[in-house]
Amino acid sequence: MLEGLEVLAFDVFGTLVDWRTSVARQVRRVAPQLDGESFADEWRARYVPSMERVARGEIGWTKLDDLHRASLDELLAEHELDLPEDDRVELNLAWHRLEPWPDTVAALTRLRERFLLVPLSNGNVRLQVDLARHTGIPWDAVLGAEIVRAYKPDVRTYASVPELLDVPAAAAMLVAAHPSDLRAAKAAGLRTAYVARPLERGPQTPQPPPQELADFDVAVAGLDELAGLLLDG
Amino acid sequence: MLEGLEVLAFDVFGTLVDWRTSVARQVRRVAPQLDGESFADEWRARYVPSMERVARGEIGWTKLDDLHRASLDELLAEHELDLPEDDRVELNLAWHRLEPWPDTVAALTRLRERFLLVPLSNGNVRLQVDLARHTGIPWDAVLGAEIVRAYKPDVRTYASVPELLDVPAAAAMLVAAHPSDLRAAKAAGLRTAYVARPLERGPQTPQPPPQELADFDVAVAGLDELAGLLLDG
Repeated sequence: MLEGLEVLAFDVFGTLVDWRTSVARQVRRVAPQLDGESFADEWRARYVPSMERVARGEIGWTKLDDLHRASLDELLAEHELDLPEDDRVELNLAWHRLEPWPDTVAALTRLRERFLLVPLSNGNVRLQVDLARHTGIPWDAVLGAEIVRAYKPDVRTYASVPELLDVPAAAAMLVAAHPSDLRAAKAAGLRTAYVARPLERGPQTPQPPPQELADFDVAVAGLDELAGLLLDG
Repeated sequence: MLEGLEVLAFDVFGTLVDWRTSVARQVRRVAPQLDGESFADEWRARYVPSMERVARGEIGWTKLDDLHRASLDELLAEHELDLPEDDRVELNLAWHRLEPWPDTVAALTRLRERFLLVPLSNGNVRLQVDLARHTGIPWDAVLGAEIVRAYKPDVRTYASVPELLDVPAAAAMLVAAHPSDLRAAKAAGLRTAYVARPLERGPQTPQPPPQELADFDVAVAGLDELAGLLLDG
């Protein structure tokens, strides 16, 4: 089924790293009066709408660090919290220092023995570079939204993987915890692997119904299972 | 002098890897009747003219692998050598398997402890990814001509380093063995380090006059000296 597979492209936020717990920790450190998890959720809730403003052309290309910062400033104003500039800069960098899920680094290190590995994230290049240094994720190159100046699910992001790594689209697979991301990858001709991340949004994380997962080449409970399937399966 | 330096961008062909000896070896393997070094020199002589066709808009964006392949086909025709397609594909991949100069990997491994390291080459992304795997060069990300769809010395290539790594231009340095490359980097606001590679074009490699090197922030005899200067100096 997966003959000819050469490249694995990974969604990052939620799929490889636990943004909620990591951001919550930094929020508590910088602003102990806030509820860390709630603030992380509110911040993340502005993520898709902020990228949609770029996609609709309301604002020009803007890297995710700057969208994150604008959302942070809005949220702090809503909470009537006047943090100093240094703390805002520091807090915005929380997204560069997210912790990996426990299976991430070991599984990617194994998978890299057989496949080329790249992130395909909406995070900007510097964010991904810092995250890779922080976590030890071993990328071959850093692809993603900033390279093509368009956010997922714009088809240009997915198409850039086979184009820049010079393989047929079906020789590349997107690995992600989000069905909408995988459907867009599939529409661009990539293979798809769904990874369950039942704690991404905390204990109440909604999980997709099993029939939704039947659209994808692979659906696994974690990255160890994916590595087993692709390397030994 | 080099306060605030965060990013080192490297020219690759000639600066980090010995293209001439490596290509010559592959040429001899595939076509023993050819003089390996002469053929490598002839192939490389078509490199700049082929990129200039793209820069002038005579042909659309074309990745270096495809420019290399067109030059190879022309050269084989001139030599009246009718190599089979498989051998042409194999020979063109010689540029993905170049050997590093003896100081390259150790020096870059040391430099990576303090700096972010990226290639800034005219080689396409897949070529750089394969070269990094082949040599063990530890990149943080793969930048270069293909990312911006313009070949050096187009200013967009140099400008992409501070832009994508989110630093001021003066916090990034181009390391290269070619004064013309360094002059273009300097014009884009980057710092510059010249590395002598006296064997790049064989024993007769012309070396720039010392006064030409005075334009650059640093001029060193090799990458060990650069590492010493930037890490201990």
